[in-house]
This record gives sequence, C-alpha cells and structure tokens, in this order.
Amino acid sequence: MTTPPDWVMQLLPAAPTGAHLLAAERAGSNVDSGRIAELIHGGRAELASRARVEAAIAADPRLDMDESASWSRVEKIEHSLERGKVLKRLRKQHNWTDTEYAFATRIQGDGNVYNLHDSAFIRVLKDQSTDEQKAAFLADAENDRIIGCYAQTELSHGSNVRGLETTATWDPSDKTFIIHSPAITSAKWWIGSMGRTANYAMVMAQLIVGGKNIGPNTFLVPIRDLKTHEPLPNVFVGDIGPKVGYNLVDNGFAIFNQHKIPHLNMMARFGWVDPATNQFKRRGSPTLTYGGMTYLRVGIAFDAATALARGAAVAIRYTAVRQQFQDEDDPNAKGETAVLNYKMVQYRLLPALARSYALHFAGRELQALFNRFDTAMKSDQNAALAILGDLHLTSCAMKTYATTVAVEGIETCRRSMGGHGYSAYAGLGHLYGEQLPSATYEGDNYVLTKQVARSLLKSAGDVITGKGGDTPLDRALRHYAERKDTGAAFDVLNDDEQLVAAFGWRVAHQTFEILRLKMKAKETWNNLLVPIWRLSTAYSEWVTVRAFYERVSGAGRERLVADVGAPSADAIAQLFRLYALITLEERTGDFAESGAVNAQQFGLARHRAIGSVIDAVRPHALNLAEGWGLSDFVLNSSLGRSDGNGYEDMFRKAAANPVNGLTFDPDPNSDIMVKRRDRLAKL
Amino acid sequence: MTTPPDWVMQLLPAAPTGAHLLAAERAGSNVDSGRIAELIHGGRAELASRARVEAAIAADPRLDMDESASWSRVEKIEHSLERGKVLKRLRKQHNWTDTEYAFATRIQGDGNVYNLHDSAFIRVLKDQSTDEQKAAFLADAENDRIIGCYAQTELSHGSNVRGLETTATWDPSDKTFIIHSPAITSAKWWIGSMGRTANYAMVMAQLIVGGKNIGPNTFLVPIRDLKTHEPLPNVFVGDIGPKVGYNLVDNGFAIFNQHKIPHLNMMARFGWVDPATNQFKRRGSPTLTYGGMTYLRVGIAFDAATALARGAAVAIRYTAVRQQFQDEDDPNAKGETAVLNYKMVQYRLLPALARSYALHFAGRELQALFNRFDTAMKSDQNAALAILGDLHLTSCAMKTYATTVAVEGIETCRRSMGGHGYSAYAGLGHLYGEQLPSATYEGDNYVLTKQVARSLLKSAGDVITGKGGDTPLDRALRHYAERKDTGAAFDVLNDDEQLVAAFGWRVAHQTFEILRLKMKAKETWNNLLVPIWRLSTAYSEWVTVRAFYERVSGAGRERLVADVGAPSADAIAQLFRLYALITLEERTGDFAESGAVNAQQFGLARHRAIGSVIDAVRPHALNLAEGWGLSDFVLNSSLGRSDGNGYEDMFRKAAANPVNGLTFDPDPNSDIMVKRRDRLAKL
Repeated sequence: MTTPPDWVMQLLPAAPTGAHLLAAERAGSNVDSGRIAELIHGGRAELASRARVEAAIAADPRLDMDESASWSRVEKIEHSLERGKVLKRLRKQHNWTDTEYAFATRIQGDGNVYNLHDSAFIRVLKDQSTDEQKAAFLADAENDRIIGCYAQTELSHGSNVRGLETTATWDPSDKTFIIHSPAITSAKWWIGSMGRTANYAMVMAQLIVGGKNIGPNTFLVPIRDLKTHEPLPNVFVGDIGPKVGYNLVDNGFAIFNQHKIPHLNMMARFGWVDPATNQFKRRGSPTLTYGGMTYLRVGIAFDAATALARGAAVAIRYTAVRQQFQDEDDPNAKGETAVLNYKMVQYRLLPALARSYALHFAGRELQALFNRFDTAMKSDQNAALAILGDLHLTSCAMKTYATTVAVEGIETCRRSMGGHGYSAYAGLGHLYGEQLPSATYEGDNYVLTKQVARSLLKSAGDVITGKGGDTPLDRALRHYAERKDTGAAFDVLNDDEQLVAAFGWRVAHQTFEILRLKMKAKETWNNLLVPIWRLSTAYSEWVTVRAFYERVSGAGRERLVADVGAPSADAIAQLFRLYALITLEERTGDFAESGAVNAQQFGLARHRAIGSVIDAVRPHALNLAEGWGLSDFVLNSSLGRSDGNGYEDMFRKAAANPVNGLTFDPDPNSDIMVKRRDRLAKL
Repeated sequence: MTTPPDWVMQLLPAAPTGAHLLAAERAGSNVDSGRIAELIHGGRAELASRARVEAAIAADPRLDMDESASWSRVEKIEHSLERGKVLKRLRKQHNWTDTEYAFATRIQGDGNVYNLHDSAFIRVLKDQSTDEQKAAFLADAENDRIIGCYAQTELSHGSNVRGLETTATWDPSDKTFIIHSPAITSAKWWIGSMGRTANYAMVMAQLIVGGKNIGPNTFLVPIRDLKTHEPLPNVFVGDIGPKVGYNLVDNGFAIFNQHKIPHLNMMARFGWVDPATNQFKRRGSPTLTYGGMTYLRVGIAFDAATALARGAAVAIRYTAVRQQFQDEDDPNAKGETAVLNYKMVQYRLLPALARSYALHFAGRELQALFNRFDTAMKSDQNAALAILGDLHLTSCAMKTYATTVAVEGIETCRRSMGGHGYSAYAGLGHLYGEQLPSATYEGDNYVLTKQVARSLLKSAGDVITGKGGDTPLDRALRHYAERKDTGAAFDVLNDDEQLVAAFGWRVAHQTFEILRLKMKAKETWNNLLVPIWRLSTAYSEWVTVRAFYERVSGAGRERLVADVGAPSADAIAQLFRLYALITLEERTGDFAESGAVNAQQFGLARHRAIGSVIDAVRPHALNLAEGWGLSDFVLNSSLGRSDGNGYEDMFRKAAANPVNGLTFDPDPNSDIMVKRRDRLAKL
C-alpha cells in the first residue's frame, strides 16, 4: 500500500456530516464566540498576533508535527533541536515579541530543547548575579553563545531543597569552588535542556566554606565544551530517558567529580565568598526576587485554564458530531442523536467548560495581583512586601488547584469521547501527558497546600487576637468567628451572592477547625495533612468562585455586556452557576460539615439545580467552547476540527501512518518478519 | 559518551539505602506475603507455573522490552510481530497451557499482533459456526495457517451495533455475499490485529437478502492474500495509527468495495441464507452463546484488580524508599522520613491497595457465578438461563466498576510518586495507558450502566408486585420497601455487618427513586442517565463490599485464617474496613440521601475512623502489596524493584538510553544538528 485506490478516495462520510452538524450547533446559539475570544485573549490585536505566529509555523515543513506520535524518542529529540533552531530564526525574521515567541514555543503543547535556557536559566542569571557577572555572562546567554539550564532537583531530592547533596566547596588555595556529587543519589535529575543541549548549568549546591555548610547556593557551572560539545572532564551528563510526556525536551542528569569552577561563577548578588578573607557574606535580601518568581505560578495557572479549554473544545466539537443511537425518549426520532445530547456526557463536559472559564477569570485576578506587586517592587519595596504574603498564598493555592482541575478535566474530556479519545489523532492523550507534570514542577501540589494552610492559619490567629486586616479572607474569618455558634444558612440555590458566601464560610470553618486541632488538641502536622489539602482546595475554590462572580454581577456584568453582548454575558453567567453548583455537589462533605448547606439544599442542587443550569448551557456549549478562540492548528486534533470533518481526517492520517509501510509475514513458523518496506505519501 | 567513566560507576547511593529500608518495612509486619500470594493466585503450583513462564521470557533477548518506551511506532510493531512469533514457539517448546500462554502474552501489559487471533477470532469461529464451517476453517485457524481478527466497530459506530453501515448483500445469481462499505464512516476501525497481521476478518455487517435488511450478522472475510500478504482487490486495509497505549497492537481499519465471499463464509449456526430458496432462516437461539461471552467481562474485572495491585505495589515500594524532609512533629528526628509516612500519601495509596483486594475478591465471586453458568450450560440449559440474568447484571456492573476504579487508582499511585512517577522507568504511565481502553472495550462503561439499571428496576418492580425472588438484591429491595417510611439507622462505625447493610440500603433507595421518577414522574431516560450511573456504581460497590466481607467474617474468616494465618487475615480485614469506609466517604451524597448514614457518622468516619484504619494498615502496607506476588519482571518498574535499588536502576537505564548516543550542535545559528551518533552499551 503506498496510496489508496481511487474507490477509497471517492468515499464520502454518511449523512449528516460533521460540517452540517456543527453549522446547526453554531446557528442554534446567540453566543458570540468571536467577541468572547477577544475578551479572553485581551483584544483583537492579540488574536491577530497569535494568528500570525501560527501561520508562520504552519508554513514551515520542518515544524510539522503530524507524525510525532509515531516517532522514536531519538527522532523526537532531533526534531526538537531543529524545531528550536527554526523557531529562534523565525523569531528574528518576524520580529516576534517575547510573548509571541513564548506562544510559538508552546503552541501545540510541545516544548523544545531551548525552553529552559530561554526562560529559567536567563531569569536566574539576571536575578541572582552581580553587575560584574552580568557583564561576563548575560550577553553570551541572551545571544545563545552559551546555552544554559537550571539544575536544582536531584535524583533523591526534589521538594526538600535543604536536603540537596551536591556540594560546592570553597578552595582557598586557588580561589575556586569544587562542585561534587558525593553519591549516585546526588545526581542532578530532571533538568530541562541538560540532557543533550546545554553547555552551562545553573547548579544549586550546598556551599561549604572552611568546612562549614552554609546551605544551598547557586553556581554557574560549565558542563560541556563550547567547541566540541563533549562533556567536560569530571562531568557525566546525559538525558534521563523517556517520560509520560514532554519527550521533545531533553530532561537531563549530571554528576560532578570534584569539578573546579572560578570564583566568578558563584551567583553572588545575595551572598558571596570574599576571596581575601575566605569568609561567606550575605548581602541584601532575596525575598522580593523570590517573590518575582511567583510569576511562574501565575503563568502555570493560566496555562492550565487554556489546556482545559483545549480539552473541552475538542470533546464538545466531537460529541456534537458523533451520533450514536436513536433518542429513546422520542419514538418518532429520525436518525441518531448527537452524543452531546446525552445528559451523562453533558454532566462531564459542560462542567469542564465551566471550569476552564472559572480558572481563566481567577487567573486574571491573580495576574492583576502580581502586576500590582511587580509595579510596587520598582517603586515602593515596603508596599511590595505588603502584597507579597497574599500573592504567595494565592499563587500557591491557584497553581495547585488549576493544575489539578485541568489534568482531571482533560482526562474527563478524553474519556467522554469513547474509543476514539484513545487515538493519538484525538489529541487529548498527548495534551494530558504534557499537562501532567504541571502538578509537580514549581512546587509539588501537595507540598504547596501546606504553605497555603499556614498562611490561612496565621490569618485566623490574627482575627482571633483582633489583629486581622480587612481582606475578603479576614472578613470571612471574622464573620464565621462571630456567627459560628448560631450557625449560618445560605440560600445557595436562589441567591448567587449567598452561594459565593457559602464558599467563604466553608473556608473559615475548615481554617478554624484545623487551628483548633493544632492549638487545643495538639494534633501533629502529619495528622492534619489531609484536612490541609481539603482547606487549600476550599480556599482556591472560593477565590475562583469569587473572581468568576465579580465578572458576571454588578459592575462586572455591565463591563461584560459591553464586551461580549448580553446573550454571551448571560451564557457566561450560567457557566458561573454551573461551576459553583457542581463544586458544591462535589464537596458535599465539606459544605455539610461547615453547616453552610443543608441536606434539602444538596438534594435540590443534585437533582434539580445542576440539571437546569446544564440545560441552559447546552445550546451554547459549542459557541462557548469556541469562545476560547483556539485554532485548529493549536488544537491539533482530527476529531476537534472546526470544519467537523474529523472522520475523514482520522482516515487520511491513519492510512498514511508509517506502520502501513510494513508488509508482514504473519506466519509464526516463518523467520521472516517484514517482507517489504514502503514509504507512504501524505494524504 | 559510550560508557560512563569509572568514577561514575563506583558511586553508591546515599544512606539509608532502599535495600535497608525495604528490609525494615518487611520485618516490621507479621503479614505473610507468600501465603497471601498463594491465596490470590490459587496455590503454590500456580505461582510456580507463572515463575516458569516469566523465566522463559526473561531468558530470551528477543523479548527484552527495556527500551520499548523509546521505540518508534514502527519499531514497536515490528518487535510485536517478533514477540508474537517467539511466544508461540515458546508455548510449543515448553508445553504451556492456555492459561500460561495467556499470562505470557500479557505479562508486562503489552499485547502482540496475534492476541485477537488467539482469543476473539477463534472463539467467535467456534461459537457461531456450523460443523461444516468448523471442518473448513477451524484447524487452519488453530494452527495459525490463517490469522484472523474480529471486526465489529466502525469509524462512526461502536456501541450501537444496529447502526453499523457495512453491508453483506446476498447475490442469488452466483450464491455469494457482497461485502461493501458504502461510506468512509463505515470503515471497520479499531480492529485488533487487522492493521498489518490478519489475513481473515470476522466481519459484522448488515445482511441484505432480497433487498431487505435482516440486521447484523457475522461473515468470515478474506482480506489479504495468503501467499503474498498483499490486501485483496477491493479491500483497503491498514493500521489506524498511534494510540495513548497498546502501540504494540496493530489495531486496524478496512474498507470493502463490493468484495465477494462464498456462501460458506457467513457464520451460520444461528441463521443462514438458504441458497436454494434465497431466504434467510434463523435457527436455535444464540442467547446462551452470548452469555458465554460474559467470560470476557469476568476476565477484564480480574485484570483490572491485578493492574491496580501493580500500581499499588510499585508506589508503596517507592514511597517506602523515597525519603523527603525530616519529621516536623519530631524535633529529635534523625534524617528524613519515608514519603509513605505522610498521611496524605497514605490516604491516597492505602485505599488503592484496599481496592485491589476488594476487586479481587469480588472478581472471585463473579467468576464462581460464571462457572456455575458454564457448568449448567453443558447439562441443564434452563438452569443456565436462570443464572444468565444475574450473570449479565453483575458482569456488566463489575466490568464497569473494576475498570473505572483501576484506571483512577493507577493514576493516583503514579502521582503519589511525585516527579519520578512521570518517568517511563517508573512503569505506571505505561500501565495506565494500557489499562485505559478497558473502560471502553467489551461495552462502554457508560452504556453498560444502563443495562445494570434496567435489570435492577425490573427486580424492584417484581418486589413491589410480590414476584421477587430471594437473592440478596431481592431481600435488600424488600427490606427497604418495608422500612423506608420509618427510615433506617446503620451503626456503620462499630458493626461491619451493618456497614455492609448500609450499602444495600443505598442501592435499594436509588433503585426505587429511579423507578418512581420513571413511573410516576414519567421522567425521560435521558434525564435519568446520571442517577443511573450512580446506581450502577452503588450496586457494584455493594457487590464488592459484600464479597469482601464474606472473606473476612464468619466461616470466610475461618478459611482465611487457615489459608494465610491470623495476622494476615487481620490485616486483610482492615483492608475491608478501609475499602468500605473510604467508599462511604467518597459517596457521602448518596449515603446521606438514602438516610443510611447521618451527619455525625460522616464526621466521625472522615475525621476518626478512616484515620484509625489507615494507621492499622500502614505497618503492613508493603507486605500486603507484596501479597499480590507480582515479580519484578511483571512490575517492570525501576522504582518498584523488590531490592529497593530503584535509584541505581533508573540511573543505569537513563545513562544507556539511546538519546544519549546523539551529540548535538546546540548553536541555533549552525545548520548542523547532530554532530555524532554513538551506540550505547547497556549498563
């Protein structure tokens, strides 16, 4: 088989076609997906900029990822290198902004071998170096004359940075640092771009001066020869092997054997070893710099929302096209009904859609908070410090929550597609695999929740001692503290404001419960980890539901109507209710315990209110999903195509997939395996 | 880099080593994993037989899967063909039984290109053919002279068999059937072994006789030339491309263009076209034969339990070795604490372990039911028909439930391993990918739940009209019908029998509620799909908790103590309580609605009882996980190794992974990509 016979190419899909069904879906709703897309992406200019980047990428055959799911790991990593080089050239050629370049490098979810150099390495170099060091290294890094990576995690230590085993020992005899890995478990591990690409690594190591361990510090360590690209003597470095996803990135390892680096290569902005006295000295405070790193978590929360929206868009399009069984409740039904008309499918997909919007609006709030911090940092450091606590709390909570919700939701979307969701051409298996590590990097989700809880407990303690401020959290805690004995009743089914308030009451209840267990019952931290996880989730859900509510009520609603028109604003308001109610139901145990919602309300939510809001969203599901403005190129899914021609596209890709170039000898008694190998034409 | 320098190979892991930590775990529990393994696998002889098969496979380098995660799809499918041939030869060489061969073909979760030929194709051929057809085809099939597949699903139709588009039109002029695909959507799709291997397909098609559609029937259709293995004229056949998992299987497609097959090739046991009269005639009833196919669902439920146990074993071993942070509650703690000591990790992993045991014991019950049916089918067909209803109900419910629980649980285990769980060398990403489609094949889980509900509703109707029998279901329904107005109170926290009874009450409540909505409120089926899904889950959980309870109480406990000794029996009884309580908590909404459990009980379950039983299980976690008797070869996970040397093994595999044979030119301005390619030695 090299090309299919004519009689195959002439076959059409059975009626009704996907194109017809999607057109009918779109026409059946007055939601304006174009205006929503402008709202989500920040305007028409931003959408156009994204489209330009996509067009440039789509036009370059070296960036074609159509067969990537069939590639070996070696092919993937080679393509990744080429992809990286081509994107850097396109960036220059088209004068892409940083935002455009960042979009280009993650356009279909796949990174490339330069990602960590472009982001973490250069950022750390800028943040933690002295002027002298900037002069020595920054231009080379920014012009890719050196390619770096950021090497913190080790084989046996990730979350616990203080437990890192790699040492950097000050050698007063020749004024160098000796980088050393004392055990196999101290190997740097998971380091993006270290595997095959980087020639420098920003290495976090225990600084030893005069026999004393000063603690973790950062060192700029050459790892490969700048000319030959061979590992330097006393450096053993390589790729850590295949992963569930991210196989276009060369996550790597490195082991050091008494590897000497110059004095200049210790990042010295906040502390250095004085070569004259051989003493370590701190200088300045890295707090605000570390605060600046919260932008990473803000970005992750945003990306999670978009990833979930991709899943929802693909699954909603496909289930609007996929028809299966006649409608059992309508004996006169002609033909089959779209799978999206099944309540069980709606019950899985529409909440995923609602969550993508909810996470987006919450992400916007978080970004606004970060921007206030960033502005303050440049003018009024005390003001910046005042914001930092809230920024840290909310970014930890939202990073954890958004990534958890997104990975769960993407997998829910994939499964709602039935068997075809398992095909690589559906695109969601890949999306899931790429999204998964977001739950681990930039702080393991379970570890971060403890930081969230500590911050909430502190606020609760302040409220008790009368020191609390006037943030929404302080007010919710105070409200609960005043009323908890009389109890609370929230009209969650008829009053959206009270629905939101019930989320706040739940947070306050859980916070004070943990405080009581810790203070009065002297409970161990370990025994509180499960309640702490629940609390962090509760807090994130409250932040999210509040951010969403502000968009669809009061002055927020007026702005929303102005932006997208009343019908679209109404549909988005239904998504708010769906998000709030489905979350309420999912957390029945929490809400019931706090007393915010009673059994009768749960029953009505479960059996009436959620069904009603799903019915209200259903006609607009496709247009709301398309409101994310995610192009076919970005979705990269046969079944999620905007033209509805998923079956034909699946067929074309399948027929041309490289496995079909093999002609087997299927006789088990024959020692011949493959009788013939053909190259197949792309259809 | 071809081999690492000596100073690398001499590095040891930092203390305490995995070997030391696992030894301490094992010594700290009096649970006897060896005796439990005998219980689970049916005796010492079965364990020995499995070990022999493993040894034969491990000894053959052609079956080495160590680098399979790095293979391209083409490499995977070529290895799969070779694997298939080698296993068939080993089967003869070692005289493997059918059970041993089946174990061998799925030993590490990967199938091969002959799986569907060996199972579904031959089974359908035996079940649905006449003696004349058996004489014509069976010996060739059983001796692999023809290689077949089972082709039901089409591109646009899966669950709805009546909607299949492929036609088989009787041609009275030459007494043949014309197999035809009228549209691209009628392409047979997902057909295991069809892609590159099979030369025959058992095709389900709409039989058209005299212009009339008789409905779906089965046809034995030649698709490739037996000599050249080229597709036959008018057949377009190929592999459907890469998938989330199962990439060693050539799931395929086929399109037929007026493809003629002989009269003999319509499977004619239950209906045939009389060539003399050109009329279709039914004969006999396929009901019991279809009943026999429930063995597939029984097998799937069992496999799901084992897959989950694999996940739990890997994760429990790794988290017992992985240490991170000092114990915060113990200021005098020396060194770090095992991640498995964290409550949040226990709260995720120990329920997964408990569920694997629960599903196993429930699977045993289901298998016993199937065996009664199978025995009856050979002697007393009325007795077999009497069992069939219950068998169908329970196999649909348990297939759905077990596969859902297993995939969720495996992913929970993988994530509990933190970053390293994302490495292919952890083994769980692969296991998850292979387990996923079990939720779709042999009946989509969501479609099957409707069949479960219909059966339960019929039983409830019978109870109301006084016709019900005396099964546990009938009794639970009757008990509820009698007491529902006065309500029920179950002492779920102190009395295991009442804990189990609460599960039955919940099932009865949900069944009668749906019956009421359907009968009195005339609710549409569509509006009931979500409650129906909940009901099927509730029923499965009741079946499971009952089967588990019978093993750990009364006469069951006596047998268990005789089999595994009192300490192991006690630990297994704790797993029963953990399974029941965690399920109760997870389904708070259901239990609360039914009135079986009140708010105070939920609070105590959540904050006391579950924690206590987790504390009771914790010391035995490793030994209970090892009670599954899953060898290192089967687990196929660096981090789940029984010797605890996961870090070293990860390092060895990573260093030798083929990507490390590439020396990059990392300069974005250079057009050279790879400067050198080396082959790496296995370490």
